[in-house]
Amino acid sequence: MAKEKLLLVKVGGKVVENPAALSQLISDLSSMEGRKVLVHGGGVLATKMAAAMGIETTMVEGRRVTDDQMIDVVTMVYAGLVNKRVVSLLQSKGTNAIGLCGADMNVILSDKRPVKTVDYGWVGDVKRVDGKALSTLIESGVVPVMAPLTHDGQGHILNTNADTIAAETAKGLAEFYDVTLVFCFEKKGVLRNADDDDSVIATIDRPTFEALKAEGVITDGMIPKLDNAFSTIAGGVKEVVITHASSLGDLSQGTHIK
Amino acid sequence: MAKEKLLLVKVGGKVVENPAALSQLISDLSSMEGRKVLVHGGGVLATKMAAAMGIETTMVEGRRVTDDQMIDVVTMVYAGLVNKRVVSLLQSKGTNAIGLCGADMNVILSDKRPVKTVDYGWVGDVKRVDGKALSTLIESGVVPVMAPLTHDGQGHILNTNADTIAAETAKGLAEFYDVTLVFCFEKKGVLRNADDDDSVIATIDRPTFEALKAEGVITDGMIPKLDNAFSTIAGGVKEVVITHASSLGDLSQGTHIK
Repeated sequence: MAKEKLLLVKVGGKVVENPAALSQLISDLSSMEGRKVLVHGGGVLATKMAAAMGIETTMVEGRRVTDDQMIDVVTMVYAGLVNKRVVSLLQSKGTNAIGLCGADMNVILSDKRPVKTVDYGWVGDVKRVDGKALSTLIESGVVPVMAPLTHDGQGHILNTNADTIAAETAKGLAEFYDVTLVFCFEKKGVLRNADDDDSVIATIDRPTFEALKAEGVITDGMIPKLDNAFSTIAGGVKEVVITHASSLGDLSQGTHIK
Repeated sequence: MAKEKLLLVKVGGKVVENPAALSQLISDLSSMEGRKVLVHGGGVLATKMAAAMGIETTMVEGRRVTDDQMIDVVTMVYAGLVNKRVVSLLQSKGTNAIGLCGADMNVILSDKRPVKTVDYGWVGDVKRVDGKALSTLIESGVVPVMAPLTHDGQGHILNTNADTIAAETAKGLAEFYDVTLVFCFEKKGVLRNADDDDSVIATIDRPTFEALKAEGVITDGMIPKLDNAFSTIAGGVKEVVITHASSLGDLSQGTHIK
């Protein structure tokens, strides 16, 4: 039997923290037919909120060190402020949403990251996503809105990267749906020329990716993003699209990873 | 057909903010068989968090004035910090919980309180509880854990008293279940003599209530609590129990409102 289509959209803090961009996102999502899941970030706001409370933010290789105080801050900002703001806005457009962190219905269980050279603190590496529980919600007509938090099953909330949540959730849902995973990005897609916003590479497959790396077109932070996308495809997700949040209404745009 | 029993427990901030009391609550709830819902407060922590951010708390007649800054604080503390802490602890005891505010699945819709002599700001008076949506979750084996926040359907989160959330939710579920509503209290129940912790009045019905008020045994803050309890009974809830959180394991204790 053909699976139903499902769109899983990941937006970063820059979208959810900007009222105009957020409002556009809510409208776009609400006008899209079919089954949907939203995963959001909120890092900039967490850093700002921590600062307001006199708590300093430490980042190592782009990842937040999450000590006892910081896990409380991100739990408040991600699962509270950002998540409920998004859910209430979706409701106002007639989209029946439900906000979730990984502890809710036990949807995402993680392992606390082992301390190697860096102690990231209360950071979780995803162990399993309960696609069945999520699909039950989705089939009841609800749109899950997922905060980038998981839990360890022992009573601790863990901070987990939103891109990872999106990728792992997409894989967890691939058994039940034809999943398209959309990463909203600050550019229109993967660019051939960093200085030319219109030089979007329409399609990237494995051989193209290797060639683009060899050419030096794809470098630095883009490499793990694409590695992540390819591992998602390998995990059963049908397609990954990297696009600008404002292009969510037209998914023929952006870079398509196959 | 006989309805299934459901236990709806309301605990205040004093329980969820005290690690020992919280741990006891989680154990008691997890060891109870059958269908359950938990409603929690968190006001003391919200006031503390607001203070840490340099935001002053204003209370009028025991109710929080909720301006633009304060609604963000309570959304963070109630729906984020407290709610996810409780949910992850319940999961650690094998109780499959889901955290909800009123915007999630549109479970509690409110009207923003009209400004009369006091402008309470973003405070909501409950308009309707979606008992059907809640019962669908409950029948899937999940325990809803409800934060004292609702929404107006127009994209705004509203601050709503946790006792009210508990009472309205109990009434909304009365169509589907034989609901017992338990208010956890700092005393063992309604006391005949305020100075004697063991002078718990076992049962109060309407005539007893009127007599106790006339005698001056029930006064002040206890009157609206009991009025609230009686209106819940009138709304179809089977029984209301006012008891100490530590007595949750033995509901024959406490004061029973019928």
